[in-house]
Amino acid sequence: MGAPPGYRPSAWVHLLHQLPRADFQLRPVPSGFAPQEQEYQQALLLVVALAGLGLGLSLIFIAVYLIRFCCCRPPEPPGAKSPPPGGGCVTWSCIAALLVGCAGIGIGFYGNSETSDGVSQLSSALLHANHTLSAIDHLVLETVERLGEAVRTELTTLEEVLVQRPELVAAARGARGQAEAVAQQLQALAFWRGVPLSPLQVAEDVSFVEEYRWLAYVLLLLLELLVCLFTLLGLAKQSKWLVIVMTVMSLLVLVLSWGSMGLEAATAVGLSDFCSSPDTYILNLTQEETGLSSDILNYYFLCNQAVSNPFQQRLTLSQRALANIHSQLQGLEREAVPQFPSAQKPLLSLEETLNVTEGDFHQLVALLHCRGLHKDYGAALRGLCEDALEGLLFLLLFSLLSAGALATALCSLPRAWALFPPSDDYDDADDDDPFNPQESKRFVQWQSSI
Amino acid sequence: MGAPPGYRPSAWVHLLHQLPRADFQLRPVPSGFAPQEQEYQQALLLVVALAGLGLGLSLIFIAVYLIRFCCCRPPEPPGAKSPPPGGGCVTWSCIAALLVGCAGIGIGFYGNSETSDGVSQLSSALLHANHTLSAIDHLVLETVERLGEAVRTELTTLEEVLVQRPELVAAARGARGQAEAVAQQLQALAFWRGVPLSPLQVAEDVSFVEEYRWLAYVLLLLLELLVCLFTLLGLAKQSKWLVIVMTVMSLLVLVLSWGSMGLEAATAVGLSDFCSSPDTYILNLTQEETGLSSDILNYYFLCNQAVSNPFQQRLTLSQRALANIHSQLQGLEREAVPQFPSAQKPLLSLEETLNVTEGDFHQLVALLHCRGLHKDYGAALRGLCEDALEGLLFLLLFSLLSAGALATALCSLPRAWALFPPSDDYDDADDDDPFNPQESKRFVQWQSSI
Repeated sequence: MGAPPGYRPSAWVHLLHQLPRADFQLRPVPSGFAPQEQEYQQALLLVVALAGLGLGLSLIFIAVYLIRFCCCRPPEPPGAKSPPPGGGCVTWSCIAALLVGCAGIGIGFYGNSETSDGVSQLSSALLHANHTLSAIDHLVLETVERLGEAVRTELTTLEEVLVQRPELVAAARGARGQAEAVAQQLQALAFWRGVPLSPLQVAEDVSFVEEYRWLAYVLLLLLELLVCLFTLLGLAKQSKWLVIVMTVMSLLVLVLSWGSMGLEAATAVGLSDFCSSPDTYILNLTQEETGLSSDILNYYFLCNQAVSNPFQQRLTLSQRALANIHSQLQGLEREAVPQFPSAQKPLLSLEETLNVTEGDFHQLVALLHCRGLHKDYGAALRGLCEDALEGLLFLLLFSLLSAGALATALCSLPRAWALFPPSDDYDDADDDDPFNPQESKRFVQWQSSI
Repeated sequence: MGAPPGYRPSAWVHLLHQLPRADFQLRPVPSGFAPQEQEYQQALLLVVALAGLGLGLSLIFIAVYLIRFCCCRPPEPPGAKSPPPGGGCVTWSCIAALLVGCAGIGIGFYGNSETSDGVSQLSSALLHANHTLSAIDHLVLETVERLGEAVRTELTTLEEVLVQRPELVAAARGARGQAEAVAQQLQALAFWRGVPLSPLQVAEDVSFVEEYRWLAYVLLLLLELLVCLFTLLGLAKQSKWLVIVMTVMSLLVLVLSWGSMGLEAATAVGLSDFCSSPDTYILNLTQEETGLSSDILNYYFLCNQAVSNPFQQRLTLSQRALANIHSQLQGLEREAVPQFPSAQKPLLSLEETLNVTEGDFHQLVALLHCRGLHKDYGAALRGLCEDALEGLLFLLLFSLLSAGALATALCSLPRAWALFPPSDDYDDADDDDPFNPQESKRFVQWQSSI
C-alpha cells in the first residue's frame, strides 16, 4: 500500500541477461552486474571484440569477392553490345541495399530519440530527488532556526515576566526543554546534509554525456544518409568519381557502423545485467558514496511494508514533544495571563510559532516518507531500463541493417561502376541535367545493358 | 519548496493558443477552453471545415488540371517516336511526390508513437493518483478500526481492572475519549470516499479510446505506405491496371488525409486552449464531478506556498490527541501497574497499538500532502500537453505532406499513365520479371520517351 507500483524488468532485460558471458580465456562469467571486476569488464570487451571480428570478416569477404570479380573475370571491352550477365542484378541489389540502409537510418533516428528520452527521464528523476532532498534540508534548517529564535526571545521574555511565580517559570522552562529536544530530533532528520553525493551533479553529468552521444549519433546517421543518397545519385547519373568517393565513404561508414554496434551491444548487455536486479548494486554504490546507514537506504530504495521508517522514532518523539509544548503553553495561558497580562503577547507569538512548526512538521513527514523518493527511483530506472534500453536496441538494429546494407553496396558498387559507359564522351557542361538528350541516351545505353 | 517543479505550457501551446478563432458567423471567439459553449464548439468545427474546404479545393484543382490535360491536348498516337514534351518531368514529379509521401509516413509513425506515449503517461499518472487516493481510504479505515478495536477490548479491560481506583478509571476514560476523537478526526480525512469520480475509470476510458485511435492511424499509415509502394511498382513496371487502381486508392487516401488533418487541427487547437491554463478548467470540472470543497481541490491542483493544507487542523488535533493518549497511558503504567499487575498486559497492548497508529498517521500525513498527487497532476499534464500535442503536430505534418504528395501524384499519374506503351504487347507470363528482355526493352522505350 505504501509503495507506488514500481519498476519491473522488461522481457528484453531478461532476454539479454540470459545470454552467456565469457572472459578473454572464454571461461563463463556470471551475469551479475559488476563493472569493477576484471572478469566482467573482459566479458563486455569481448562483446565489443565480437563486433570487431564481424567487421574484419565482412572486410575480408568484400575483399575476396572483389578480387575474385576483378581477377577471375576479364572486363568486357567498353561499349560492347552484350552486357555482362547479372549486371542488372548487381545494380538492383545495390539500390535495394541502399534503400534498406535508408530504412535503417529511420530506425536509427527513432532509437536515438528514444534513448535520449529515457536518459532525460533519468536526469529529471534525479533532479526531482535532489529537489526533495534539499527541501528536507531547508525545512529542517528553517524549523530549527524558528524554534531556536522562539526559545531565545519569546520564552526568555516569558520567563522574565513570570519570575515571581516559580511554578510557572518551571512550566516555561519545561516548554523550553521540549523545544530544544524537538530541534535536536529534527536536526538528525536532515540525513542528506554533508553527503558528498549530489543527485544534481549526477544529473548534469548524465545530461552532458547524453548530449554528446546524441549528437554523435545524429552526425553518424546524417553521414550515412548522405552516403546513401549520393550513392543513389551517382548510380542514377553514372558519375564514376561520385561512386568512387561514395565507395570510400561507405567503407568508412561501415567501420563506424561496426564500431557503434560493438559499443551498443556491450552497453545493452551491461545495462540488462544492471536492470535485471538494480536494487542491490545501487544500494551498495550509494552506501559507499554517501556513507549513509543501510536502514535509510533500504527504506528509500525498497519502500515496502517490510522495511520500517528509520525516522519513525524521531518523528514520534518530536510529535509528542510538540503536543507537550502545546499543552504547557495552554496551561500557562490559563494560569498566567489573568495575573500577568504582559505574558499574553509572547504566549500568542509562541502558539503561532508552534502552529507553523506543526505545519512544517507535517510537510517534513511527507518529504521524508519513502513514497516520493522511491517514485523518483522507479522513474529513473524505467527511463534507463525501458526507454533507453529499447532505444539502444533500435540503434543496434540500425547498425546491423546499415552494416549489412553497406557491405552489400560495397560488393556491388565496383561491379555497377564497371558497367558504366566509358567517361570519354562526358560533357561536363551538361552533366547536371538528367533530362538533356545526351544524358538520356547514355541512360538508355546503361538501362539496355541491364 | 513544497511543490515539485510542475508543468509549464510549451511554445507550441502558446503559438496555437494565439491563433484567432471564429464561429460560424465569423465573429471572433475568445480562445479560453470552453468545450460546453456553443460558440467554442463552432470555432473548432470551423477548423474541421477548413480542412474540408482544403479537400474540396484540391479536388477541384486536380479535376480542372486533368480535364485541361485530357481535352486541350490530343493524345499522341501510341508508339510515336517523339514523346510529348514534359513527360519525364511528369513521371519524375510523381516519383518525387510519392517519396515525399513516404517520408511523411515515417513522420506519421513517429507522431503516432509520440501521441501514444503522451496518452499512456496521462493514464499512468491517473492510475498513480488512484493508487494514492485508495491508499488514503484504506489507511484511514484500517487505523479507525484498529483504534475502535483497542477502545472496545483493551481499554474496557483496563477500566474493569482499575475499577477500585476511580481517578485511574477517569484517566482510562480520558484515553478512550481521545482515541474516539482521533478516530473521528481521521475519518474525515478520507476525503475521496464516496466520490463518484474514479481516476481508474477515467484512465481505462482514456486507454480504450487511445488504443483505437492508435490502431486507426497505423492502418491509415500502412494503407498510404502500400499505395505509395504499389504506385511506384506500377510506374516501374508500367502496369496500367495497377496505376489505375492506385489512382483510385490515392483519391481515397487523399480524402482520409484531409479528414484526419481536420480532426488533428481541431484537436490541436482545443488542446492548446486547454493546455495554456489547465488549472481553472480542471478545478471547475473536478468540483462539479466530485462535489469536493474548493479548499481541497485548490490544495492538490495548485500545491504552492499560498494554499494552506486543508487537513492541517485535523492532523494537528489528531497528533495532539495521540500524544495525550501516550502520556495518559504512561501515567497509568506508572500509577496502576504496581498495584494492579493484571493491568500491564492491556497497557502494553495499547501502547503497541498507539505506536502502530502513530506510524500509520505519519504515512497518512505523507499521502495527504499535496506533493504526491500534484506530481501526478503535473505528469498527466506533461503527457497530454507536451508529448501528445507534439505527436499530434507531427501527425498534422504527416497529413499535410501526404495530402500534398497525393494531390501531386493524382495530377501526374494519369499523365504518366498516358505515356505508357500500349498494353497489347504485354505478355502476362513474363509480367513479374523486371529483368526479362522484353520488359527491359519496354522500359528502355519508356525511358527514352522521358
